[in-house]
Amino acid sequence: MLFIKLIFMDYSDQIKAELKKKHIKVGDHVVVKKDVHTFEGILMPKSQGRTDSLIVKLANGYNAGVDWTKDTKVNPASGKKETKKKAALHKYKPDPSKKTVAILSTGGTVASKIDYKTGAVSATFTAEDLVRAIPELANIVNIKPRLVFQMMSEDMEPYHWITLAKKIEDEIASGADGIIITHGTDTMHYTAAALSLMVQHPPIPVLLVGSQRSTDRGSNDAAMNLICAAQFIAKSDFAGVAICMHGSTEDSFCHIHDGLHARKMHTTRRDTFRSIDVLPYAKVEQDGTINWLRTDYKRSDKKRKAHIVDRFDNKIALIKMHPGFNHKILEFYEGQGIRGIIIEGTGLGHAPINVTDDYTKHHELLLSTIQRLSRTMIIAMTSQCVYGKVNMNVYAPQRIMRESGVVEARMTPETALVKLGWSLGHTKNIEDAKKLFLTNVAGEILDRVEIPAYE
Amino acid sequence: MLFIKLIFMDYSDQIKAELKKKHIKVGDHVVVKKDVHTFEGILMPKSQGRTDSLIVKLANGYNAGVDWTKDTKVNPASGKKETKKKAALHKYKPDPSKKTVAILSTGGTVASKIDYKTGAVSATFTAEDLVRAIPELANIVNIKPRLVFQMMSEDMEPYHWITLAKKIEDEIASGADGIIITHGTDTMHYTAAALSLMVQHPPIPVLLVGSQRSTDRGSNDAAMNLICAAQFIAKSDFAGVAICMHGSTEDSFCHIHDGLHARKMHTTRRDTFRSIDVLPYAKVEQDGTINWLRTDYKRSDKKRKAHIVDRFDNKIALIKMHPGFNHKILEFYEGQGIRGIIIEGTGLGHAPINVTDDYTKHHELLLSTIQRLSRTMIIAMTSQCVYGKVNMNVYAPQRIMRESGVVEARMTPETALVKLGWSLGHTKNIEDAKKLFLTNVAGEILDRVEIPAYE
Repeated sequence: MLFIKLIFMDYSDQIKAELKKKHIKVGDHVVVKKDVHTFEGILMPKSQGRTDSLIVKLANGYNAGVDWTKDTKVNPASGKKETKKKAALHKYKPDPSKKTVAILSTGGTVASKIDYKTGAVSATFTAEDLVRAIPELANIVNIKPRLVFQMMSEDMEPYHWITLAKKIEDEIASGADGIIITHGTDTMHYTAAALSLMVQHPPIPVLLVGSQRSTDRGSNDAAMNLICAAQFIAKSDFAGVAICMHGSTEDSFCHIHDGLHARKMHTTRRDTFRSIDVLPYAKVEQDGTINWLRTDYKRSDKKRKAHIVDRFDNKIALIKMHPGFNHKILEFYEGQGIRGIIIEGTGLGHAPINVTDDYTKHHELLLSTIQRLSRTMIIAMTSQCVYGKVNMNVYAPQRIMRESGVVEARMTPETALVKLGWSLGHTKNIEDAKKLFLTNVAGEILDRVEIPAYE
Repeated sequence: MLFIKLIFMDYSDQIKAELKKKHIKVGDHVVVKKDVHTFEGILMPKSQGRTDSLIVKLANGYNAGVDWTKDTKVNPASGKKETKKKAALHKYKPDPSKKTVAILSTGGTVASKIDYKTGAVSATFTAEDLVRAIPELANIVNIKPRLVFQMMSEDMEPYHWITLAKKIEDEIASGADGIIITHGTDTMHYTAAALSLMVQHPPIPVLLVGSQRSTDRGSNDAAMNLICAAQFIAKSDFAGVAICMHGSTEDSFCHIHDGLHARKMHTTRRDTFRSIDVLPYAKVEQDGTINWLRTDYKRSDKKRKAHIVDRFDNKIALIKMHPGFNHKILEFYEGQGIRGIIIEGTGLGHAPINVTDDYTKHHELLLSTIQRLSRTMIIAMTSQCVYGKVNMNVYAPQRIMRESGVVEARMTPETALVKLGWSLGHTKNIEDAKKLFLTNVAGEILDRVEIPAYE
């Protein structure tokens, strides 16, 4: 289990010595005192952040992080042990008057239960666990938790998107009114794009929810993001794949982002997700207030049948243009049997292909290589600008690339990469795959850029 | 001259036929009538945009684009020829009471004169040309135009940065009070980062200025960006390399962006440049009003000597992590003798290196390859989030990468790539280059992220 070894860090040697002295093990009920504060709860394993702070899961479900100093005291809580009996007292009962939401857990820190003994994410991800962690959820919707994966999102492969698409199909067939997928934030926008293409005409909302701050921090955003997602499903008629995450640095509202046009834009901020070149669908508050910013969304209709198209060919690559770019990488990919390449060009979709002086003579090689490869694979141009789309009609050099077969991808490079693999998964014929790539299947091709989306 | 063939488009066949019939050639003085409008001026060559609109350079220096329809009439202007004699009447005279600004032209649409006969950018880039195009400039500063390159910025190579650094050194030695570099926008931030490292302790301001809209469009931003840059040089005590571009979609103000922390963020908007994780230094208006947003800038001091460090090793590469990423690209770069790689990781600086199930077994290969290569080359981690910096201390897998020698680059991927080549240019010893890469030479390493910089 390399996973566990890599993911879970240990407490500092000092803390470990103190725990050993007191015969305390991770998972035990403890009382931690520091200054005037007392924290009582279950000692959690250390998974993130500083190794010299104790993590205690409090009775209200939140985790407290207590920095270890010479004044910190930890002791076993007298006579208290978490028992299965106690958990059974709070047996979760669905309310037939409420909508039912399947919660698919893929890992990360959101809504997953850690086995206090081993540090592994437990396979028994129950409604009770979830309600204990976020009691508000049960007041909004009925929940059906499902453990799908136990991984950080940077490790997700196209295979996992396919599995998720099938799980979504299963939950739709079982009558769910909505689906929440808890997911690491790093590649959430890639997954959202993939599910938008793989689950066509979904009759219900499918919301990806993550958290930017680990559950041992006061600024943890998991609970609010989940509550807003549940409220949005309970109170709206939206259908489709979207991302529900903090819309500001405050705990004031979440944004519902179009799954095909969103991007993680900040390494740490809770409002890290931004809609790119479109407006978010809506703002949602924890009390269920919804402010719609777009009305062009598909309405939910449980009579509609979702069509699952879970094809993917991973013989794809993504390269970014930059000064000093060397064309040989393209030849390398050709040799590897790659069938499609997304280029992150500069500006409107540019590449160093002009010979202007003695020092740019090699640019001719890049142009000729691009021209040659665009006959045998899909070469699609996007822009590294992030905002705004490519336009290969403005400047003459781009026209030359376009005429040789390079295509414009009027979407983010991330969505383009997903669309590329998905299109190639349909056929061995490159021209057919190219046609599919250029067909607007689920709204991924943006004809028009929403100017206020860039602020 | 492949350059000309690629860059300059021709007018449509219909327009060409009409021009031939009337014995009109590009460069001739013409009168164009359409509807109730009359445009009189010099017929310009067609370089961008639609081929079915005529471009006429008006007496005020602006270009008008007139769509060609059956109502459009073009005729030679009676008896008018642009003569050298006329231009000589407006001989430019510097004003000793004003600051002197060297304007280094590198190409693009800004402030370059097109030879109307051949379509080539003319080597005679004179003060008269510039003052005729933007008369306001001469009221603000004395100008010394210098033609350095004639290229679009996507074609710039590290060699061109070195040439520019030397030209800057020359102009500083000649007593310039400030330098404006007119530059295409696509790679302006790469050039700004390079010049920030190559021209150390500059005694004067060095401002990069570009335009997002071609000069045949009414929304052309070249004039205002140049005027704001001249005003900022005339009225401030700033020294250093910065970018001066539109700060909003209106013609209201320009931002002065830190050359090490800026990025082109929109393919078309005039306020495409954004400061990343820092605030812009200032807002500048066309009338010379300056609103400072930061006060931590270096003050100009013409007694200070700039130190030119124009080294660069182009044996570098940039790769972006994504679902489905294949480690073989790293082995390819190893075989190519690459000495340093910038990784655009996900989130805080992550890569798919964890084995969590049967479908992620190959992640072990990526981890072991990264670990192996980080002993013989510089592997530096940045984030594809754009905003916020990497932090390889938060999660255990990143710690493992860091311990094997992968370094954090707390800068944009673009600045990191430039810093990498610059550091490697100093020495054949990788460890020495790595030390230099991790040394904060010119403010490129951000200890702290300015939260309001992400809006």
